[in-house]
Amino acid sequence: MSQPALAAPAAEAASDAVGGGTAYIFNTLLFLIGGFLVMWMAAGFAMLEAGLVRAKNTSTQCLKNIGLYSIAGLMFWVIGYNIAYPNFAENSLGLFGIGGTTYGMQGVGEADLETGYSVASDWFFQMVFCATTASIVSGTVAERIKIVPFFIFVTVLTAVIYPVVVSWEWGGGYLDSVHDFSDFAGSTLVHSTGGWAALVGALIIGPRLGRYGPNGQVNVFPGTNIPLATLGTFILWLGWFGFNGASQLAMGTVGDVSDVSKIFVNTNMAACGGVVATIILTQLRYKKADVTMALNGALAGLVAITAEPLAPSVGQSILIGAIGGVIVVFTVPLLDRLKIDDVVGAIPVHLFAGIWGTLVVALTAAPDSGVTFLGQLVGVLLTMVWVCAASAVVWLALKYTIGVRPSEEIEIAGLDVHETGVEAYPDFARTG
Amino acid sequence: MSQPALAAPAAEAASDAVGGGTAYIFNTLLFLIGGFLVMWMAAGFAMLEAGLVRAKNTSTQCLKNIGLYSIAGLMFWVIGYNIAYPNFAENSLGLFGIGGTTYGMQGVGEADLETGYSVASDWFFQMVFCATTASIVSGTVAERIKIVPFFIFVTVLTAVIYPVVVSWEWGGGYLDSVHDFSDFAGSTLVHSTGGWAALVGALIIGPRLGRYGPNGQVNVFPGTNIPLATLGTFILWLGWFGFNGASQLAMGTVGDVSDVSKIFVNTNMAACGGVVATIILTQLRYKKADVTMALNGALAGLVAITAEPLAPSVGQSILIGAIGGVIVVFTVPLLDRLKIDDVVGAIPVHLFAGIWGTLVVALTAAPDSGVTFLGQLVGVLLTMVWVCAASAVVWLALKYTIGVRPSEEIEIAGLDVHETGVEAYPDFARTG
Amino acid sequence: MSQPALAAPAAEAASDAVGGGTAYIFNTLLFLIGGFLVMWMAAGFAMLEAGLVRAKNTSTQCLKNIGLYSIAGLMFWVIGYNIAYPNFAENSLGLFGIGGTTYGMQGVGEADLETGYSVASDWFFQMVFCATTASIVSGTVAERIKIVPFFIFVTVLTAVIYPVVVSWEWGGGYLDSVHDFSDFAGSTLVHSTGGWAALVGALIIGPRLGRYGPNGQVNVFPGTNIPLATLGTFILWLGWFGFNGASQLAMGTVGDVSDVSKIFVNTNMAACGGVVATIILTQLRYKKADVTMALNGALAGLVAITAEPLAPSVGQSILIGAIGGVIVVFTVPLLDRLKIDDVVGAIPVHLFAGIWGTLVVALTAAPDSGVTFLGQLVGVLLTMVWVCAASAVVWLALKYTIGVRPSEEIEIAGLDVHETGVEAYPDFARTG
Repeated sequence: MSQPALAAPAAEAASDAVGGGTAYIFNTLLFLIGGFLVMWMAAGFAMLEAGLVRAKNTSTQCLKNIGLYSIAGLMFWVIGYNIAYPNFAENSLGLFGIGGTTYGMQGVGEADLETGYSVASDWFFQMVFCATTASIVSGTVAERIKIVPFFIFVTVLTAVIYPVVVSWEWGGGYLDSVHDFSDFAGSTLVHSTGGWAALVGALIIGPRLGRYGPNGQVNVFPGTNIPLATLGTFILWLGWFGFNGASQLAMGTVGDVSDVSKIFVNTNMAACGGVVATIILTQLRYKKADVTMALNGALAGLVAITAEPLAPSVGQSILIGAIGGVIVVFTVPLLDRLKIDDVVGAIPVHLFAGIWGTLVVALTAAPDSGVTFLGQLVGVLLTMVWVCAASAVVWLALKYTIGVRPSEEIEIAGLDVHETGVEAYPDFARTG
Repeated sequence: MSQPALAAPAAEAASDAVGGGTAYIFNTLLFLIGGFLVMWMAAGFAMLEAGLVRAKNTSTQCLKNIGLYSIAGLMFWVIGYNIAYPNFAENSLGLFGIGGTTYGMQGVGEADLETGYSVASDWFFQMVFCATTASIVSGTVAERIKIVPFFIFVTVLTAVIYPVVVSWEWGGGYLDSVHDFSDFAGSTLVHSTGGWAALVGALIIGPRLGRYGPNGQVNVFPGTNIPLATLGTFILWLGWFGFNGASQLAMGTVGDVSDVSKIFVNTNMAACGGVVATIILTQLRYKKADVTMALNGALAGLVAITAEPLAPSVGQSILIGAIGGVIVVFTVPLLDRLKIDDVVGAIPVHLFAGIWGTLVVALTAAPDSGVTFLGQLVGVLLTMVWVCAASAVVWLALKYTIGVRPSEEIEIAGLDVHETGVEAYPDFARTG
Repeated sequence: MSQPALAAPAAEAASDAVGGGTAYIFNTLLFLIGGFLVMWMAAGFAMLEAGLVRAKNTSTQCLKNIGLYSIAGLMFWVIGYNIAYPNFAENSLGLFGIGGTTYGMQGVGEADLETGYSVASDWFFQMVFCATTASIVSGTVAERIKIVPFFIFVTVLTAVIYPVVVSWEWGGGYLDSVHDFSDFAGSTLVHSTGGWAALVGALIIGPRLGRYGPNGQVNVFPGTNIPLATLGTFILWLGWFGFNGASQLAMGTVGDVSDVSKIFVNTNMAACGGVVATIILTQLRYKKADVTMALNGALAGLVAITAEPLAPSVGQSILIGAIGGVIVVFTVPLLDRLKIDDVVGAIPVHLFAGIWGTLVVALTAAPDSGVTFLGQLVGVLLTMVWVCAASAVVWLALKYTIGVRPSEEIEIAGLDVHETGVEAYPDFARTG
C-alpha cells in the first residue's frame, strides 16, 4: 500500500530523498505507535463491556478482557502468526511450526534493510489485531458464560480461526490472489471474524436468563456504568487511529505519511458521522438521544471505514460511517426480535457494519484496483462459512463437555462471586 | 515558529542536514501524534464532567461530550476550517465555500514537498482544537440544559464563532498582523473562547435549581465520581503535550524538535506548579487539601502556559502555572458569590487562567518578538467582545424559541431519564 | 545501549545512512513518546489505587496521586536530576546545586548535535521515572496515612533517596563502574526502590485498623471499584512500552529501532505470561480465577522483564513474566501472615518481582556483558540498605513529629471527609 509514485517529486532534489535507513526507522516507528494504540483498544473493550454488563458480572468481564488479550499474545506467538503469514519469512517453520521464530530469527546483529522495517515491530502490530478479534466475542456472550470455556474458545480463535482468515488475504492467499478482495485494515478479517464467532456463540449459549419473556417481551438489562462505557468508546476511537493508520504499513515516504494522514481524517470523520446519525435517528424515533446508541454509532462508523479508509473522500467517509450508525439503530432491536442476546451490541457494530464497510469498497476503490462487488462478497461469505463452522464446532464441543454456562443460581446471583471471587463494587448498595 | 538559526550547525556536515522529504515526514508525524493526543482530550473532558456532575445527569453529560466532538468534526469540515484559514490554500473556496476541499484537494498524487507537511495531518490537528473549545462550554452549563439546544449551540460555535477568532491570529488576520498578538497554542483562541461562551451561557441559562438559596447561601452539589474526574484530568494533562508540543508545527529540524522538548517540560512543570499551589493554598485556607481544586489547579496551570510554553524558563513556567492555580482557588468562590453557576469550574480554569497566561506573554516573550502588553490586551478584549456577543445571540435565540432548560420536574428528577433514556448507574442505590 | 555494529550494513549505501540531524530528531522523539507514555502511568497508578482502596478513602488516594506526580516534578528539577547525573552536563552545578540548569542551559540557540538528542527530552523522560517510584509507595501505605506526611515523604524520596540510587548505576557510579550491575529500565532502581520505601513505610506506619484480628485472622477489605483497577493496569501496561522501550535511549539507527521493537514484544509477552500464570494458578489453587491477582500478575510480569527486556528471547520473556506472576500469588498471602499491610500488593509486584527480574539478568545477559549474579545481588542489596535506612529515618521522623496516622475516628470514618473534604461517591448508598 505504499505510494512509489510519490517518490518521484521527492527525488527531484537529492537531499529530499528519504534514505533506506531513515525509511526503515519511520516504518518501524509507525508499527510501534500503531501497535501501542491498538493494544490500548484492549482497555477500551474492557471498559465498554464493564460499563454495559450488570454490576454483578463486572469483575468477571474485567478478568475476561485482560485474560483474552494475554492468551491472544501467547497463541499468536505459538502458532497464529505462522498460520497467518505462512510464506512471509524464509525463517518460518511453516504452518504448524512453533512460531515466534519467524521474527525471533531476526536478531539484533542480523537486522538489515531488506525488510524495510523491524520484523518484531510488525509482529507486535499483528498480535494486537489478533487480540482485538477476541475482544469482540467477549462482549456478546457476557454475563452467562463461565471463565474457563470462554478462555478455551479464545485460545482456539486466536491460535487458528482468526489466523486462517488472515492468511487468505493479508497472508497473500486465496482471497487476495484470486478475488482481488480488499480489506485495508480488517472490517471483515478482524471485525466480522469476531462478529461471526460472537453470533454463533450467542446462538449456541443462548440468551441470559429472563432476557426474553413470553409473547416476544424483551427485558432490558441496563448497563451498570455508562461513563465507563463512554470511556471505552473514546479509547477505541483513539486506538483506531493506530488500527487504520498504521495499516498503511509504511510512512517512510512523503506519499505514505500523507496517506496515513488522510486515513486519520477519514477514520475520525466516519466515527463523527456514525455518532451524529445515531443521535439524530434516536431523537427522531424515540424522542430521546440514546447515549449507548451514540457510542455504538461511533464504533459502527469506525468499523465501516476500516475496510477502506484511504480511497474515499471525506464526504464519502462521513456517509459510510453514518450508514454504519443507521445499521446499528435498526439491527439492535432486530436481534432482540430474533432472541439473539448480544449484551453490548457487538454483532451490529462489528459484523453488520463490517459487512457494509467491506461491500462498499467496491464503490470507493480506485478503478484500477480490481476490486469488485462480487469479490468483496466472496470474501464476506467465505469468512462467514469458515468462522461460523469452526466456531460452532468449538462452542458445541465446550457445551457438551465442560459446559459453557454456570448454574442458574450462579447466573442469577452474578458470576463475580463464584467465578472470580471478587465483587466489582462491594462498597455500594444495590438497587436489586 | 521553526528555528532556522538552528539549521546552521546541522548543515556543517552535509550528512547531518535533514532532507526535505525526511523533514516532511517528521512534521506530519508531529501533527498526527499531537492530533491523537488532543483528540484524547475529548475523553478527558467527558470523564472530568461525568465525574463532577450528579449521578442523575451523568449519561446526558457523556452523550453531550461524544456528540459535541462529532459535531465539531463535521462543522469544521463543512465551513470552520475555511473561515479559520481563509487564505491558506489556493484551493480554498473562500469564506463560505463548502470546506474540506482545501485539504481534500491535496490528493495522494498531488502531495508535494512545498507545504512541508501533509495538509490532512494539519487539518486533523486543527479540528481537534475546535472540538476542545466546545468541550469547555459543556462543563459549565451542565445539569440544566437540554441536549438539542446544546448541540445547536455547539454547531454555531464550531462552525463560526471559534473559527473567526482563529482567523484573526493563526489565520494571519488582524491580531497577528496589526498587534503582534501572540498566543502560541491557544490560551485565548481556544480556552478563553470556550470560557467566554460558557460564561455567557451560564448567565443566560441561569443556575441549577436550588443551587443558590436566599441570603447568599450556596448549596454544594458534589460531583458523583471523583476518580473519574481525576482520570479526566490526567487525560487532559497527557493530551496537553500534543496540544502545546505539536503547536510548534514542525519537528523536522534539530532546533524544532528541541523546542518541542522544551515545550513538553514547561507544559508539564506548569501543571505541577498549579497542583502544588492549590494543595498548599487549600490546606492553609481550609485545613483540607481539596482534590477538586488540585485537579483544576493542574488544568489552570496548563491553560496558563499554553499562550507561551516555549520562551519561559522552567522556573518561570512553574510560577506561571502556580499563579494559574491560585487564580482558581480565589475565583471559584467568587463566581458563586455572583451566582454564576459553573458546574466544573471551567470559567476560572479556561477563561481566567487563559487571560493570565495570555497577558504574561508580554513579560516572557523574546524582546524582538514585538509582543506588548497592550497587544495582548487587545487580543483578549477583542475575543471577549466577539465571543460574548455572538454567543449571547445564539443562547438568547435558543432560549426564546425552542428553550434551553428542561422543565423543573425533569431537572429535579435528573436529565438522564428524560433526555437520553439511559440511567448512568442503574444498579446502585442512591443516597438522595 | 545503542547498537553501533548495526551502522555498518546501513552505511553500505550512502543513501541508507541516517544522518546526524535525523538521528537527533529520532532519538529525541523516542524520549518524548516514551516520556508521555510513562507520564500516563501516573494515571494508571491513580486508577489502580483508587479502585483497590475502600470508597471512603478514594478521594484522598486520587489527591495523593496527582500531588505526588507534581511534587516529583518539582523536586527532580530542584535537585534530583543533579544528584542522579552528577557528571552528566558540564553545566551541572554539582550535587547540591540548584538543578534544572543542566538542561535549561541548553537553550534553543545552543542546541547542537553533540548530545545526539535534546537534553530537555531526556530530562522529561527521567522525571517521569522519578514520579513512578513515588507512585509505588502510595499504594502500599494507603488508607491510614495523612496527606501532609505522605507528601513530605514523597518530597525526600524524589529529591534525594531515588536520585542517589540512580546515580550509582545510570549516573555512572559505583554499581555501574565496579560491579557491571545491569538494570536496563529499572527493576531495581525504580521498582525495588519504591518497593523498599513502601515496605519500610508499611512496617513503621502499621496495618489498617481491624485488618488483622487475633489468632492470625486476616480481614479482607475488598477494593471498591474493580473496573477502575483494571483500567489502571491497562494504563500501566501501555505506559510500560515507553518505560522499557524508550530506555533504549536511541532510535536513530536501524539497530536501535529494531531493539526498541524487540523490547516492545518482550515487554508485552512478559505481561501476558504473568497474567496467564496467575489465572491458571488461582484457578487451580482457589477454584476461582482471581481478577486482582491477574492484574497484579500483569504488573509483576512487567516489573520482572524491566531489568533486561532486550536480551531474552520471547520464550524467555514469557517465562520471566510468568514467574513474576507466580511470585505474586505466593507472596501476597505471605505478607498478610507477617501482618504487613500492603493495600494494593505493591511490595510483591514491585519489590519481589523486581528482585527476581534483576537477578535473572545474570542468566539472560550477553556473555560478554560482564553481568554476574554476584554483581546483580550487590545492586539489590545496596539499594535495600540505602533505601530502607533513608526511608526509615524519614518515616520515623514524621511519626514522632507531626505524626503519620489520622486518629482512629478519622480512619474508621474514612480519610476523605477529614483530609480532602470531598467524598468520592457522594450519590451512592454504601453497604457498610
